[in-house]
Amino acid sequence: MSVKKISILGSTGSIGTSTLSICESHPDQFRPVALAAGSNLEVAFEQCVRWRPQVVSISTEALADQLSARLKTAGVSGIEVLHGTAGTVRVATLPDADFVVSAIVGVAGLEATYAAVLAGKTIGLANKECLVAAGDLILEAARIHGVALLPIDSEHNAIHQCLRGGAANEVKQIWLTASGGPFRNTPLAEFEHITPQQALKHPTWVMGQRITIDSATMLNKGLEIIEACRLFNLPPEKVKVTVHPQSTIHSLVEYIDGSILAQISVTDMRLPILYAMAYPERLPSDLTFDMAALSQLDFQQPDFERFPCLRLAYEAAGASQAHCIALNAADEIAVAAFLRGELPFLGIPRTIERVLSLTSSASPASIQEVLTADRHAREQAHEAIRTAAAVVA
Amino acid sequence: MSVKKISILGSTGSIGTSTLSICESHPDQFRPVALAAGSNLEVAFEQCVRWRPQVVSISTEALADQLSARLKTAGVSGIEVLHGTAGTVRVATLPDADFVVSAIVGVAGLEATYAAVLAGKTIGLANKECLVAAGDLILEAARIHGVALLPIDSEHNAIHQCLRGGAANEVKQIWLTASGGPFRNTPLAEFEHITPQQALKHPTWVMGQRITIDSATMLNKGLEIIEACRLFNLPPEKVKVTVHPQSTIHSLVEYIDGSILAQISVTDMRLPILYAMAYPERLPSDLTFDMAALSQLDFQQPDFERFPCLRLAYEAAGASQAHCIALNAADEIAVAAFLRGELPFLGIPRTIERVLSLTSSASPASIQEVLTADRHAREQAHEAIRTAAAVVA
Repeated sequence: MSVKKISILGSTGSIGTSTLSICESHPDQFRPVALAAGSNLEVAFEQCVRWRPQVVSISTEALADQLSARLKTAGVSGIEVLHGTAGTVRVATLPDADFVVSAIVGVAGLEATYAAVLAGKTIGLANKECLVAAGDLILEAARIHGVALLPIDSEHNAIHQCLRGGAANEVKQIWLTASGGPFRNTPLAEFEHITPQQALKHPTWVMGQRITIDSATMLNKGLEIIEACRLFNLPPEKVKVTVHPQSTIHSLVEYIDGSILAQISVTDMRLPILYAMAYPERLPSDLTFDMAALSQLDFQQPDFERFPCLRLAYEAAGASQAHCIALNAADEIAVAAFLRGELPFLGIPRTIERVLSLTSSASPASIQEVLTADRHAREQAHEAIRTAAAVVA
Repeated sequence: MSVKKISILGSTGSIGTSTLSICESHPDQFRPVALAAGSNLEVAFEQCVRWRPQVVSISTEALADQLSARLKTAGVSGIEVLHGTAGTVRVATLPDADFVVSAIVGVAGLEATYAAVLAGKTIGLANKECLVAAGDLILEAARIHGVALLPIDSEHNAIHQCLRGGAANEVKQIWLTASGGPFRNTPLAEFEHITPQQALKHPTWVMGQRITIDSATMLNKGLEIIEACRLFNLPPEKVKVTVHPQSTIHSLVEYIDGSILAQISVTDMRLPILYAMAYPERLPSDLTFDMAALSQLDFQQPDFERFPCLRLAYEAAGASQAHCIALNAADEIAVAAFLRGELPFLGIPRTIERVLSLTSSASPASIQEVLTADRHAREQAHEAIRTAAAVVA
């Protein structure tokens, strides 16, 4: 395998730094050539000094000026310093890059990743919006340009590995494992009174606030259901969820003959990232699993009554691209309102359900139309929350 | 997929009847064309009436005469009735057959399976001797004739499935799961006094006497280690055993990147048989797995002190084909002596160890030489048992 040249969208985040640690441990296989950082000037500077990429992009013009100055002072030359969306897109489409790690959260990541697909790059995909809000567009573009989309989150990466055990038409269904969040054993009657403080205590992962609440409502798993439908071309009824609090088995594929293949590993993001970067090969790592960790695993059916967000995600997945956009946008607005104390916990699914009921199935034909549909759903979510507050008051 | 024509070596045994039940449920995919039965005249007759094979073979000339007479009386014509080794080889090499299920236990199965490989048939392999006693010869012949050997026992079948997740040089090691037998928690001090009655109580499977004792000594897993080394071209140090009493995970493959793929299913022989028969496709079955069965699994390291047969199998696997023959032959003789009360339980590994120490590494160059080495090891085992008895007396 010759050296793969890597562009990283989101180089200063956790997936970006994990990607660079893989470049560090596999210098003969991977070389980062373009980095799109967030706002962390210090880390972006250090990455430039260490890796000497052709291009670096940082969020704002002011930060780009500071970064240029720091690099000049340090005697580092030859790095093109860019900023904003144009800079991110340049990183995503750099002619020299073979592989683009898409790890910028949200809509900014969407535009750059779409540009990378159009430029024919192989994608290591960690941005959820790409498949949830624009799955139709991105997969159609990937098909036309012969681009492989390799999932980097642990569940879809596990499914990708297990799907190597058979042909697409031999898959009976797939099973995404879900931690179940902090309320997997909470009685339904208590759900109305769950506070932000309670919901922000997540048992397994350290995460951002929205994703922590999404884990508590299981909306995060709902988004993964939609992603799996798009990525693996499966109808929603073939994408199952099993609640598995230990997160030891990362996901499973069930074949028509009754065989199930499961992927198991330590919980470390470097593993799916390395898998995606090396695919179709596998490269060595020191991430070894202790077989004793397979003892005492739990598997439960998810409870759709206590976790209506799961049901709503299945409905959106089966309805249209516009409904998936609405689900994601309405959730983000509702979670913010919940965190400000303006909405009860169960107001999150109620808001989503209201916005979904207002959504028509017209499919966005461009990323701009996706963004328009996203903004529209957010406005409807705000309106739904105001109306609900007025009713309660 | 056009209809695959199936020859079954061992049609009246449990694998044979399972194979025919698959033919029953998949009439558009599989048709049995040749059957080699054991001594069960009644079942062989019923199979002929139901399936009208081109050829049937039964153990003895007397039984063949009776079978011919019964078929004539029943008005069933056009079936060639044979007997003995010649008949079995004819079933194994029938020009019309595409796929041969090799499920005759012992040396008789070895000769016929070798003939099937030489005839270019795809093999569904359930006979242990083929790989344990003649793995070098059979795999060399399979390579030359472009023959696929598809394992039918659940562990190797699971490994075969999990190996689809990567290239051969990306395998770090494989894990065969072992039930651990009835003495997996018995203190070492009690091993010397284990009686045949205790050893014949096996917790999970109903099996023949030798295989039941082999399960109690874990020699059965030792034979599977050797089989795995041969079948998947792995050195013994890459074939691990994990004691997993529930037998829910049938085996696992660990890749160099730290990913483990595991195969899971209900415990039903029809599943690996169907997999082998349909390969490289998968065909539907009604053998569905309940995800709840993944809860409360146990995994322990095997104890080489209490189960010296495991250590001896690793040594034989690493030594030579002749040592693998000696291991298998000495075990059969020692188990029989144990069952007659002539040898203590730990006399089984002691006998094997003695015979292995007398074995030279000269590789058999033909099936005849394999059989000669096998006979020689049996004589040495008898001698070792007599000598040990004399010392004790």
